[in-house]
Amino acid sequence: MISDHSKYLKRCFELAKKGKGYVSPNPLVGAVLVKNGKVIGQGFHKKYGATHAEVDAINHAKESVAGSTLYCNLEPCCHTNKQTPPCVPLIIEKKIKRVVISNLDPNPNVNGIGARQLSKAGIEVLTGILKEEGEELNKFYFKSVKNKRPYIALKIAQSIDGKISRGKKEQTWLTGKKSQKFVHELRNLYDAVLIGANTVKIDNPLLTVREIQGRNPVRIIIDGKLSSPLNSKIFNSDDSQKTWIFTSEKADRKKFKLLKERGIKIFTARQNSIGLLNIKTILSTLAQNKITSILVEGGAKVFSEFINSGLYDEIIVLQAPVILGEGVNVSKISHIKELQLLSIERLDDDIKLVYGKKLAH
Amino acid sequence: MISDHSKYLKRCFELAKKGKGYVSPNPLVGAVLVKNGKVIGQGFHKKYGATHAEVDAINHAKESVAGSTLYCNLEPCCHTNKQTPPCVPLIIEKKIKRVVISNLDPNPNVNGIGARQLSKAGIEVLTGILKEEGEELNKFYFKSVKNKRPYIALKIAQSIDGKISRGKKEQTWLTGKKSQKFVHELRNLYDAVLIGANTVKIDNPLLTVREIQGRNPVRIIIDGKLSSPLNSKIFNSDDSQKTWIFTSEKADRKKFKLLKERGIKIFTARQNSIGLLNIKTILSTLAQNKITSILVEGGAKVFSEFINSGLYDEIIVLQAPVILGEGVNVSKISHIKELQLLSIERLDDDIKLVYGKKLAH
Repeated sequence: MISDHSKYLKRCFELAKKGKGYVSPNPLVGAVLVKNGKVIGQGFHKKYGATHAEVDAINHAKESVAGSTLYCNLEPCCHTNKQTPPCVPLIIEKKIKRVVISNLDPNPNVNGIGARQLSKAGIEVLTGILKEEGEELNKFYFKSVKNKRPYIALKIAQSIDGKISRGKKEQTWLTGKKSQKFVHELRNLYDAVLIGANTVKIDNPLLTVREIQGRNPVRIIIDGKLSSPLNSKIFNSDDSQKTWIFTSEKADRKKFKLLKERGIKIFTARQNSIGLLNIKTILSTLAQNKITSILVEGGAKVFSEFINSGLYDEIIVLQAPVILGEGVNVSKISHIKELQLLSIERLDDDIKLVYGKKLAH
Repeated sequence: MISDHSKYLKRCFELAKKGKGYVSPNPLVGAVLVKNGKVIGQGFHKKYGATHAEVDAINHAKESVAGSTLYCNLEPCCHTNKQTPPCVPLIIEKKIKRVVISNLDPNPNVNGIGARQLSKAGIEVLTGILKEEGEELNKFYFKSVKNKRPYIALKIAQSIDGKISRGKKEQTWLTGKKSQKFVHELRNLYDAVLIGANTVKIDNPLLTVREIQGRNPVRIIIDGKLSSPLNSKIFNSDDSQKTWIFTSEKADRKKFKLLKERGIKIFTARQNSIGLLNIKTILSTLAQNKITSILVEGGAKVFSEFINSGLYDEIIVLQAPVILGEGVNVSKISHIKELQLLSIERLDDDIKLVYGKKLAH
């Protein structure tokens, strides 16, 4: 029986993944209906605001779902303060016999309440099967709900000797084509990418998804003085409403107005004693604006802020086969940070290393 | 037939490997005698000065070797200016029918001459089978003969952000147990390990093989001013004749004498304009003293010299899961060095990266 449960839940994961990049701030969910050992319906959450996976599976069922088992990677919802009607009443109404789920929904409006309502209605409920895999699938959702801030990944492209460029005002292209494509895959998954004003000035990036088919993330620039040039590529894109700037009260008012006119969203954040914007405030504003995941793309000042404050969930290092000898360090931090190696992978002549926070023993 | 040849040559490689760490400056050689599809004898070169593999196999043959095929990863020797008699005359005398080898011996005294003598005597000779594998097995031998200097590997233990220690006068222990054991395995393979005087002062290492069963390498210290403290562990070992120092004419004469008295070998090398010893001269002296492979263990000044001069064959990076933020850079070099990634491997939470020189396209 266990292996059957795992089999159908894995199918839910695969279905859920089809929503990657489109469902945020919702979680990725897939659902499968099984009756007499046969799949009679399946579905997934396609994008934010669209039908939930459970309803999608029921709608697509080829026969009556009464007496069937519903597999679903996340606990069905029971709350009503949202875009779509709750799934629990429908499951009860449709006389589904059993519900098998991987994870309870960490959203305090659901968290176990959905499962309890199903049980009370006489439906058999099994939870916690493939729990870790389910959490990994929805790491953006779980971590952002738990930490009350977006999931944060720092993406660092560096030389073997840990330099991000040869000189302070010099753009240094280090990594190869496969790494670049991988970065575009990341941008397609994360709600937003984030850079500092120096990176706008030196690299003048677009931060869009071009190397693969996908959708563009929100592009966030931390620019306390609003010093990024108006002719930067990032301010001249087709979807300017997806370019967001965090600046301070000290920002040039004329530039502020011109950028606003182009449809760019500008937030004003407090500065700390050394003139840096408060990262926590920025993250809290982003969370309020439905950003559940951020890919931080640099440069050194921004990386230092995030590493120093401990505000990150993973660090992705793309290391090129080159020794720069001198150049700009990844970060300047006051304390040593011990990490945990999560994975290593070769990308042609580069390597991709993923680190997480070190777990306490 | 090809697959039979490969099979027996692979057996030669395995036999040859048993001599690792002991045959230098000779190459690693294994030999197998096959008659009527049956192995009738095998042998290998056990240590410098001992019987050659071919002779060892003949000596161990269970029946007459006349009419058999001799498999041998390296061309049998034909020259006489060395410790043991040449193998070619014995092979002819024993009426061996065929000789199958992977590599011609790059030693100009042999290089094809041995194979030709066998052919002239009516013996069938096949060469070049598993050529690359044979060259990899004997990379120390091939590269040192070709480059007229020892094979050089730089072993760099560093943080993710490319620092070798937190502060200039601070020992920082970065890598884990598995990496440390791997370093001892390397020391057991290389003829010598090499460090600078700063590393003696800060880390006070023994540079011996302790984590595994093995033999100690020659320990070379580059110390232009002879400033390493007399009470350093490295000057107080049981096998002091395996500690070699390269210094300049400016060295403290009293210290020079005291170290000599302890059995330590001291070489005097020329200094360049900025007071550094000339690496090329040092390597040439080491080659004359039968050192065919060197593991360079640091620190920053020594790494910079080797990287800058291009005097290295591989760079082994052991990267610990830690960000130091500030600290001592691996090297300070005048030009960017592009490398080629040869392998990646996980060693618990560390990673091992091996880089070679980038090949021209």
